[in-house]
Amino acid sequence: MKKYAIGVDYGTLSGRALLIEAATGKELASAVYEYPHGVMDRALPDGTPLRNDWALQHPQDYLDVLEHTIPEVLTQSGVSPADVIGIGIDFTACTILPVLKDGTPLCFLPEYQNRPHAYVKLWKHHAAQDKANALNRIAEERGEPWLANYGGKISSEWAVPKIWQILDEDPDLYNRMDRFIEATDWVVWQLCGKETRNSCTAGYKEIWNKRMGFPSKEFFAALDPRMENLVDEKFSRDITPLGSRAGFLTEKAAALTGLPAGIAVAVGNVDAHVCVPAVGIDGPGKVLAIMGTSTCHILMGEKEVQIPGICGVVEDGVMPGYFGYEAGQSCVGDHFAWFIENCLPAAYYEEAKAAGKNIHQLLREKAQRQKPGESGLLALDWWNGNRSVLVDVDLTGMLIGMTLQTKPEEIYRALIEATAYGTRVIVENYRNGGVPVEEFVASGGIARKDPMMMQIYADVLHMPVRVTSTSQGPALGAALFGAVAAGKEAGGFDSIFEAARAIDTSNDIVYTPISENEAAYDLLFAEYQKLHDYFGRGENDVMKRLKAMRNRVK
Amino acid sequence: MKKYAIGVDYGTLSGRALLIEAATGKELASAVYEYPHGVMDRALPDGTPLRNDWALQHPQDYLDVLEHTIPEVLTQSGVSPADVIGIGIDFTACTILPVLKDGTPLCFLPEYQNRPHAYVKLWKHHAAQDKANALNRIAEERGEPWLANYGGKISSEWAVPKIWQILDEDPDLYNRMDRFIEATDWVVWQLCGKETRNSCTAGYKEIWNKRMGFPSKEFFAALDPRMENLVDEKFSRDITPLGSRAGFLTEKAAALTGLPAGIAVAVGNVDAHVCVPAVGIDGPGKVLAIMGTSTCHILMGEKEVQIPGICGVVEDGVMPGYFGYEAGQSCVGDHFAWFIENCLPAAYYEEAKAAGKNIHQLLREKAQRQKPGESGLLALDWWNGNRSVLVDVDLTGMLIGMTLQTKPEEIYRALIEATAYGTRVIVENYRNGGVPVEEFVASGGIARKDPMMMQIYADVLHMPVRVTSTSQGPALGAALFGAVAAGKEAGGFDSIFEAARAIDTSNDIVYTPISENEAAYDLLFAEYQKLHDYFGRGENDVMKRLKAMRNRVK
Repeated sequence: MKKYAIGVDYGTLSGRALLIEAATGKELASAVYEYPHGVMDRALPDGTPLRNDWALQHPQDYLDVLEHTIPEVLTQSGVSPADVIGIGIDFTACTILPVLKDGTPLCFLPEYQNRPHAYVKLWKHHAAQDKANALNRIAEERGEPWLANYGGKISSEWAVPKIWQILDEDPDLYNRMDRFIEATDWVVWQLCGKETRNSCTAGYKEIWNKRMGFPSKEFFAALDPRMENLVDEKFSRDITPLGSRAGFLTEKAAALTGLPAGIAVAVGNVDAHVCVPAVGIDGPGKVLAIMGTSTCHILMGEKEVQIPGICGVVEDGVMPGYFGYEAGQSCVGDHFAWFIENCLPAAYYEEAKAAGKNIHQLLREKAQRQKPGESGLLALDWWNGNRSVLVDVDLTGMLIGMTLQTKPEEIYRALIEATAYGTRVIVENYRNGGVPVEEFVASGGIARKDPMMMQIYADVLHMPVRVTSTSQGPALGAALFGAVAAGKEAGGFDSIFEAARAIDTSNDIVYTPISENEAAYDLLFAEYQKLHDYFGRGENDVMKRLKAMRNRVK
Repeated sequence: MKKYAIGVDYGTLSGRALLIEAATGKELASAVYEYPHGVMDRALPDGTPLRNDWALQHPQDYLDVLEHTIPEVLTQSGVSPADVIGIGIDFTACTILPVLKDGTPLCFLPEYQNRPHAYVKLWKHHAAQDKANALNRIAEERGEPWLANYGGKISSEWAVPKIWQILDEDPDLYNRMDRFIEATDWVVWQLCGKETRNSCTAGYKEIWNKRMGFPSKEFFAALDPRMENLVDEKFSRDITPLGSRAGFLTEKAAALTGLPAGIAVAVGNVDAHVCVPAVGIDGPGKVLAIMGTSTCHILMGEKEVQIPGICGVVEDGVMPGYFGYEAGQSCVGDHFAWFIENCLPAAYYEEAKAAGKNIHQLLREKAQRQKPGESGLLALDWWNGNRSVLVDVDLTGMLIGMTLQTKPEEIYRALIEATAYGTRVIVENYRNGGVPVEEFVASGGIARKDPMMMQIYADVLHMPVRVTSTSQGPALGAALFGAVAAGKEAGGFDSIFEAARAIDTSNDIVYTPISENEAAYDLLFAEYQKLHDYFGRGENDVMKRLKAMRNRVK
């Protein structure tokens, strides 16, 4: 008798459930539900206005996703609920909310419904930047040893700046909250009736380290004396590694989802990290690049090394027993979208129309005809700053080599190449730090849609690039963790490694480096590296001075 | 009784006659005639094909211009030919042709009509680049003292590389030619029946210097032993200063033009240099910037100084008695045309259409709203290399500071600003060399059409920018020189200085620096200067390496 597992992937605008065969990972049915409240960045539901840079969500939407999508995948697939053995979820992070001891979100209480800080702070809530700046300054001054685990900088998107903002702006609400919890852990709590905190968000977003625990009370007191006991008062020191079972589905959650009570529930996970087993990665040395508007690079290593410019290194942060490394490029798809919106001449639209092509297709065809180096162009891919390895949001873009003969498709290709060089800097940074990188797997819409780009990556990186065939990596990963939570005896897996090895990668496409292109790109990468260091490492801080001037003038 | 003078301006595609009041410079009538043969860059009239980079003209076209335009301005203005006292001409340069002793162009001889080298080599004939390279190398090796008068480099557009190409590729024709003469001097020869050679083209294009004469026989022999006596065999050592009278109109020329025989004919002049008196400049310290696809800067000084990176310094090269300095920016209007053709998104055309504006107008309005520094962008204006002060055709463009918020109009404005910074480098280069610059006069289509650009120039240069109201600077200048050739007694002027002072500049527009903008642009110029030197003076030759790679790959 076949058994099944369900993964639920919580994105920025919607949630998606995926039903798989528990023993093989084969995808059978999926369903999407858009959050009724979407992203609240202008006002609360009652009209209370929000300031700039705010981004909130409503936790009721997360429950609605369960209620709508799980029955739908059951119906679609014809699978009997009785044959579903486990469920896993993944989420954007750090997407986090204040709740009472029993898990009730503060925004569910009538008296807090008009209080912005009572809602979920979405990952892209950027209104705590001043808190992050202060935190980084204090951590640096105090020589906090964990800072280097995060490439030297804590992001304003993470948990401590976010909760500090609450304390600062709404201390009453801060006092009322019993727990400040990642949405991924909160949904798991709703499923199995028990609070757990997963090692991934704890490590990457809450400054937790398996050996060293959280930062000291003295550090938190240095931020604000009222935060001295932050961890014990609002977080928890009880961290559960990924791949564990959080508990079993409650009667209440069973009624909500149509699934049988008592099935296994995996600990919460994060959308990027959860993809790793879904693309068939089962151990260290294999980078997963998730390519969208930005790119996130996940890699496992056998030891903990402090690598400059990474987003974080976390034990059990990806799969249990390994150190999960995360790095990022701030501007990948966004780059190309900017170009298409702002730099593509009217004549190209006419040409595309006349040829019956869409504009992306035309542009890609024109870009594809060029050989490496043929345009004479080189770009620094910093339109949105640089995350890894420079960790500097004040860096900006640069393009060099233009002549009166330069065509738009040459600039477009130069931008693509620049992101490949940026990736190579990250890969070489890992290797120089002693963390091996032997394989490169790409996922995400761009990776599947742009063979030229993937060939460029293979040529620049001197590594085959395998593009995963699944378009639902996060939901698949979450479902695999659900099958692992259920265990082999129930029809799932005994470990996430076993699950990863079960994934069918035979439909993946592998791009192999073309040696002629590799040689050309080595020359171009040397030029990139030189300009990268000149503009990025302080030799000429013109980008920062121009940006500061822009901000003064605006 | 009022007297009149005529100027004829020979451009790249057509010739234009202008009839003025001889005592005031007031413009009365003008007429244009397009060259029937245009620019021959693919084939001779008989179909003989031309190689890449060739650009020829047919000298008959120049005579046709006289025949058509002069009667037309007489008719238009109702001026009696008998009241015309003088004629002057100006020309593109170095536009040069091989002729017999009597002035007959070799291409007029039936036996040479299928020989490309028999025709006029237009200024933009670029097929002698290898000769220019060899010439520069040899001159540098020999330490030729005159090389520094040309910013260290002789252009492939100039006379010696062009005649060397003839010798190399068609020695028989080389031997047959008695003179190699600038088209401006050849037309004057046709008007007054006598060969003269003007100090402007001799100085800027033929490596002549009033004190030192031409380069030595040894130098020419080092190029090719057959060229040892080049100057005496093909050029002439008899050089006439600008502002002189070449002679008097012959009966033959009178018949051609409808003008009375015996009126004064000025020595030939060049389109850029001839403008100086036409805009009212009457002495040293005042830069004239002629802004078109590229910009040419003409300045007079009291002494001869070797300024790095200029196009040339020539005694009597602009007005008699002064040293004429010429500098250039290779890419000004071309820059903006490139941008509009390649970088302006379809949405802007739609917006312009909806608002009933043309695209230039819309773009200018959007660019105009920005304050200095507001975009955070900075460009190096080297899309077409850099003439002054770096003299390096292998430099290319650079743009820095882009973010995901960057708009096309910000890039457009950054390109405009970059040309202003490039101009400031040239002005400061003169001042550092000891040649004062106290005033800045701009002419040309762009200067009149773009008030925003002129304000930016004033702000960047810390000088008022006066934009001349005449749209026919070259023809007006040529006519003034015609009036000077006639002299005051005849109703003209006794000197070109006097003529310049007669020019009515009351309709010129003066842009005064705005001090707030000046301060912002000083900061931006400091950044420009730093990048200018980093990329332009050898610290990082990435532009050249990228360009060399491009050429290898193509």
